Amino acid sequence: MSSEFGNLLRVSIFGQSHGKAVGVVIDGLPAGEEIDPAELQRFLDRRKPGTSPLSTARRETDVPEFLSGLENGRTCGAPLCAVIQNVDQHSKDYGELRDKPRPGHADYTAWTKWSGHADMRGGGHFSGRLTAPLCVAGGIAKQILSRRGIHVGAHLVSAGGVRDISFPLHPTAQLFAELAAKPFPVLDEKAGEEMRAAILAAKQDLDSVGGVIECAAVGLPAGLGDPMFGGVENRLAAVLFGIPAVKGLEFGEGFRAAELRGSENNDPFMMEDGQVRTRTNHAGGILGGITTGMPLVLRAVVKPTPSIGRPQETVHLSSGETAELTIHGRHDPCIAHRAVPVVEAVTAAVLLDLLLEGNHGTF
Amino acid sequence: MSSEFGNLLRVSIFGQSHGKAVGVVIDGLPAGEEIDPAELQRFLDRRKPGTSPLSTARRETDVPEFLSGLENGRTCGAPLCAVIQNVDQHSKDYGELRDKPRPGHADYTAWTKWSGHADMRGGGHFSGRLTAPLCVAGGIAKQILSRRGIHVGAHLVSAGGVRDISFPLHPTAQLFAELAAKPFPVLDEKAGEEMRAAILAAKQDLDSVGGVIECAAVGLPAGLGDPMFGGVENRLAAVLFGIPAVKGLEFGEGFRAAELRGSENNDPFMMEDGQVRTRTNHAGGILGGITTGMPLVLRAVVKPTPSIGRPQETVHLSSGETAELTIHGRHDPCIAHRAVPVVEAVTAAVLLDLLLEGNHGTF
Amino acid sequence: MSSEFGNLLRVSIFGQSHGKAVGVVIDGLPAGEEIDPAELQRFLDRRKPGTSPLSTARRETDVPEFLSGLENGRTCGAPLCAVIQNVDQHSKDYGELRDKPRPGHADYTAWTKWSGHADMRGGGHFSGRLTAPLCVAGGIAKQILSRRGIHVGAHLVSAGGVRDISFPLHPTAQLFAELAAKPFPVLDEKAGEEMRAAILAAKQDLDSVGGVIECAAVGLPAGLGDPMFGGVENRLAAVLFGIPAVKGLEFGEGFRAAELRGSENNDPFMMEDGQVRTRTNHAGGILGGITTGMPLVLRAVVKPTPSIGRPQETVHLSSGETAELTIHGRHDPCIAHRAVPVVEAVTAAVLLDLLLEGNHGTF
Amino acid sequence: MSSEFGNLLRVSIFGQSHGKAVGVVIDGLPAGEEIDPAELQRFLDRRKPGTSPLSTARRETDVPEFLSGLENGRTCGAPLCAVIQNVDQHSKDYGELRDKPRPGHADYTAWTKWSGHADMRGGGHFSGRLTAPLCVAGGIAKQILSRRGIHVGAHLVSAGGVRDISFPLHPTAQLFAELAAKPFPVLDEKAGEEMRAAILAAKQDLDSVGGVIECAAVGLPAGLGDPMFGGVENRLAAVLFGIPAVKGLEFGEGFRAAELRGSENNDPFMMEDGQVRTRTNHAGGILGGITTGMPLVLRAVVKPTPSIGRPQETVHLSSGETAELTIHGRHDPCIAHRAVPVVEAVTAAVLLDLLLEGNHGTF
Repeated sequence: MSSEFGNLLRVSIFGQSHGKAVGVVIDGLPAGEEIDPAELQRFLDRRKPGTSPLSTARRETDVPEFLSGLENGRTCGAPLCAVIQNVDQHSKDYGELRDKPRPGHADYTAWTKWSGHADMRGGGHFSGRLTAPLCVAGGIAKQILSRRGIHVGAHLVSAGGVRDISFPLHPTAQLFAELAAKPFPVLDEKAGEEMRAAILAAKQDLDSVGGVIECAAVGLPAGLGDPMFGGVENRLAAVLFGIPAVKGLEFGEGFRAAELRGSENNDPFMMEDGQVRTRTNHAGGILGGITTGMPLVLRAVVKPTPSIGRPQETVHLSSGETAELTIHGRHDPCIAHRAVPVVEAVTAAVLLDLLLEGNHGTF
Repeated sequence: MSSEFGNLLRVSIFGQSHGKAVGVVIDGLPAGEEIDPAELQRFLDRRKPGTSPLSTARRETDVPEFLSGLENGRTCGAPLCAVIQNVDQHSKDYGELRDKPRPGHADYTAWTKWSGHADMRGGGHFSGRLTAPLCVAGGIAKQILSRRGIHVGAHLVSAGGVRDISFPLHPTAQLFAELAAKPFPVLDEKAGEEMRAAILAAKQDLDSVGGVIECAAVGLPAGLGDPMFGGVENRLAAVLFGIPAVKGLEFGEGFRAAELRGSENNDPFMMEDGQVRTRTNHAGGILGGITTGMPLVLRAVVKPTPSIGRPQETVHLSSGETAELTIHGRHDPCIAHRAVPVVEAVTAAVLLDLLLEGNHGTF
Repeated sequence: MSSEFGNLLRVSIFGQSHGKAVGVVIDGLPAGEEIDPAELQRFLDRRKPGTSPLSTARRETDVPEFLSGLENGRTCGAPLCAVIQNVDQHSKDYGELRDKPRPGHADYTAWTKWSGHADMRGGGHFSGRLTAPLCVAGGIAKQILSRRGIHVGAHLVSAGGVRDISFPLHPTAQLFAELAAKPFPVLDEKAGEEMRAAILAAKQDLDSVGGVIECAAVGLPAGLGDPMFGGVENRLAAVLFGIPAVKGLEFGEGFRAAELRGSENNDPFMMEDGQVRTRTNHAGGILGGITTGMPLVLRAVVKPTPSIGRPQETVHLSSGETAELTIHGRHDPCIAHRAVPVVEAVTAAVLLDLLLEGNHGTF
Repeated sequence: MSSEFGNLLRVSIFGQSHGKAVGVVIDGLPAGEEIDPAELQRFLDRRKPGTSPLSTARRETDVPEFLSGLENGRTCGAPLCAVIQNVDQHSKDYGELRDKPRPGHADYTAWTKWSGHADMRGGGHFSGRLTAPLCVAGGIAKQILSRRGIHVGAHLVSAGGVRDISFPLHPTAQLFAELAAKPFPVLDEKAGEEMRAAILAAKQDLDSVGGVIECAAVGLPAGLGDPMFGGVENRLAAVLFGIPAVKGLEFGEGFRAAELRGSENNDPFMMEDGQVRTRTNHAGGILGGITTGMPLVLRAVVKPTPSIGRPQETVHLSSGETAELTIHGRHDPCIAHRAVPVVEAVTAAVLLDLLLEGNHGTF
């Protein structure tokens, strides 16, 4: 009901920030698919807090152990379970937070939903740490997709008020690989430098900034997705909003379409290499919820990290009295850059699920 | 898989623009709920093309006939089926479109998905006409919710580049009622006049404009929704992207959060009337996917109507040759204002579904 | 949640026995499939109460009207809605039953679940009448399957204590067609005569009898279905128990397997026509939830019609006092023979759903 | 899609017989529920192969490790993951089976579905070993239910052709506790002795026997379940057929109802302790798919263990040639008695899921 998604490919995430482990069960993976553990680890490492001052000081190795679903390095049809141990929890940092919910966090809502029984240590099940097993699922999906010529990539298109350039009309697998190799995933290095400066400035102010991630997928066939509530946009949205801190999502022109006229926003059809294509891609590769065969383009906004070092106003849940809260512990002044592979992961997992359904439009 | 949504409350939409009828089956409605047909009709009429030059000239009475689910005006637990006949189809207007997909429409993707078997007349199952039965579901949900003190309202916050003011921190049922009574749903009448002028200007240019709808729900308890992919945002998004032409969605500050710092975007907790509240509502009433008890606030962007009178570039599907297309027939120069009750309808239906689950956080 | 089933092919049933109409929405039908209305009507007529004294005297034409999903006699990808009007309701026959629940019927449980708001006329949504739209779904599925060489047939293998012979190891489409053409669907005509005599004897006693239906499907590929809870047995069971009065279900040897030894119940593998087959079919065509390629064989038990003319003991729901109830109106002394096409319908619909998923075991 | 079930309570099973571990993720458990590990272990031990000659010689400790979902011994709302290590695999026993599918097992169907990539060691994901994590889910559900006065118990009602007596009209929690404490779960000790003799006789013949399990649940409220495909029977069936070797399922009189008349099978209503009850319980506590408040009674048949020591006929998958197969390794001459707690587990888990939905019949 909550920590799972997918139709033919089911992904189920478990774990709490300060529990023994986080992990994922992936049910419905096609059999016979080789999983390259080194490539997967490289993908997981993109999400890990780096050694740079841009991220939290929490250190986790983030190496998944596979309990099931693989035989001799290949998927065998059975559900795959991968577990990542938690090793560097500092639960004492969070003692005060049991009674004083952090503004902008899920502490209060979790406490309310579960009548005081929620695991509040480090955000519990709501922690960004849960995106590690999500990336295991997505990393595996990316390997399977790329063997079929479908590639997913993303970059930070805005952070701290600084904007990167957008993806070109036809991003390539090569461009995605270059982005994946960068320590800070932007297209324009100069914009990246300014973003990093903005993040460090916020850190110095004991504050944080948010950002926007632009993600694209190329190589998709036309005709993927279903009408109305079964559209590609619907299915991606249903999962992408599960990434902590995501508060908005748009496809193609997205919100900018409100400022355009139909003549500007419509993408003229044309023939190219014997295929129907569109001259522009304001639709982000989707019309009526169904892929056009053009690149899928989406943007998700990640709000500024709610954990900041400044004193904040809150309440004592026990007494209902006003309280001041100063969050200690280790925090990211920005999580948007670390969320870049997470958005890729979710996009890849949802697309693989859609592809597994095959073209059931006809039989 | 496609034209249905919901968990305990299942809504299934059927019909094509130029078929015999459109309709809805709603399964899981609580029993004993009185449905006021006059109030429902008033709600449906808000979506109908008006007599103003802002909308299409297609005329439909849009009066639903109930085939099941009601006994003596009350829900009886059995699935409710409501049917709305199509009466004013002009299918001949669409003959040419079988071979020449309209830019910005689902014609090409439907044709691809269903290998040429799609009903292409007037957009078929992808037509905005399908939002009529969706509003039947939502109108019924609104009546059930309002009896529990939960109210949903919306307005056009932007159209043709003109912006309305935003909802106040605590919108009221009274404000929603006033908006529902207006022929053009905006808070600031002056902005509304400018929007209408922008729409008519586009019409004169044989063009169209888009807009943004802001929707709010008040009276929700805290603790509604589930973590990760079961969040309120996820479940609303999964359905809202099913409204034709919606290409983006945000909650609370949404995309603006990327420009804010954590200290600006976090909502301080405080006590008010013995309840935990937040001083601001940048979160749009949702933290960690779960309601805070503050108003739920979302915005959805509706792209400019793709059907425009100007000549456009397309291709012959049969021959693969380039073609010019001039769409005749009756079209809306803007559909964003007509989509306002549709966004309310979807929001109400999803919220009722969530509420029916009860607080299963504890048992 | 309740009156729907299916994964990629969603079937949603609506209507009450004495409401305006019953009907079905089928979402996810492959496009381009021709639906032969005459063949469908012949299938529906098998379920209709005949003119024989074996069935209720209620007369319904049971001709479905298609509101959507078809264009020029072919499926078009959009959800198909078919409506069957109720014409011969005698609601006054049921007035007394509002307060006095009929033993063996859902009257009391419906009244409890919906706190007195259930439509109790003629069983409301629990009536056997709801199997008419179910047969529309199944009849369409049968046409689509048979074009792929997959055939579903059934017969009454037991009624009123009399047993028919079982299907041979390899039933044929021809055998199914012969059964479908019979007024009373048994393999052994002599057994059929005895069954009819038993039914008429029960009728004379103002009583009723039950029966067992044996259903088979041939032409299925091996490898259909998923492990554990996604097995073909699970998915058929989840729907077959939704046929009113079905209280048991078994596959292959079923309950008789408890009396067998492993050496008797195991089906030896062998090669035939270049294919792996089994020498016997005690497994009913399913091992580990997945099809073997041998005929699928299941049996469902239909309890004796609970509506009988004899006085029965019940209670006044209003006062909690004991009451005697004599049910008037029109009833079937046996419904098992009329349920034969319904079991076929459900089996066909579930199998089509499974087939639409394709072989997603590998990609 | 396959190894998961549940609506608000989602249970996802992973693992292979000879992989590193088997386990379960349970999502949607109510928070604040104390889990007694000793009681859970006692329940798991009932499923474990005993030291008696009735079971396999494989030895597993079957002690679950909880990776998530608990804090201080109570559920915290987050998904619970429990892992059971595999320690006593003898994979070499199964080498030959890669090419020679065992009759009556899923070897051939798994090999077909996954194009040769299935993990065939010891039945892989189809092994009875997977019922260990299923019992973790069920054991937890049983603890939560029993605190609400709902108790689930089962016994072996038939094995090797010997029959136990049936449950009385109103089984009690005390009776269930007594059964759970017995090394061989039957009501009539003499029948139990005969069953054990029949099992040992089969073992001596290098053969196996099947059995039937009768399971009951008491303390359920009336009104649980939904009409048609959402019935309690449907939901139980959808999961119970996922227990390996289950080939049939019936409720109340089940298949015997085909031999009864309506006047015999109908349960007269009466008042008892101010509640509507039925004088008999041929319906097994369910009418129209919805609970009556009487004990829920079901029976599931478990086929004779397909792994037998006798030579059997099979084929070489690689060459398509006929082959003889003699299964070595350790096997149960009967698994029906070990499946007794598994049927309880599934029943408890499904009932908890149903109860968590609350009575959403009205709002």
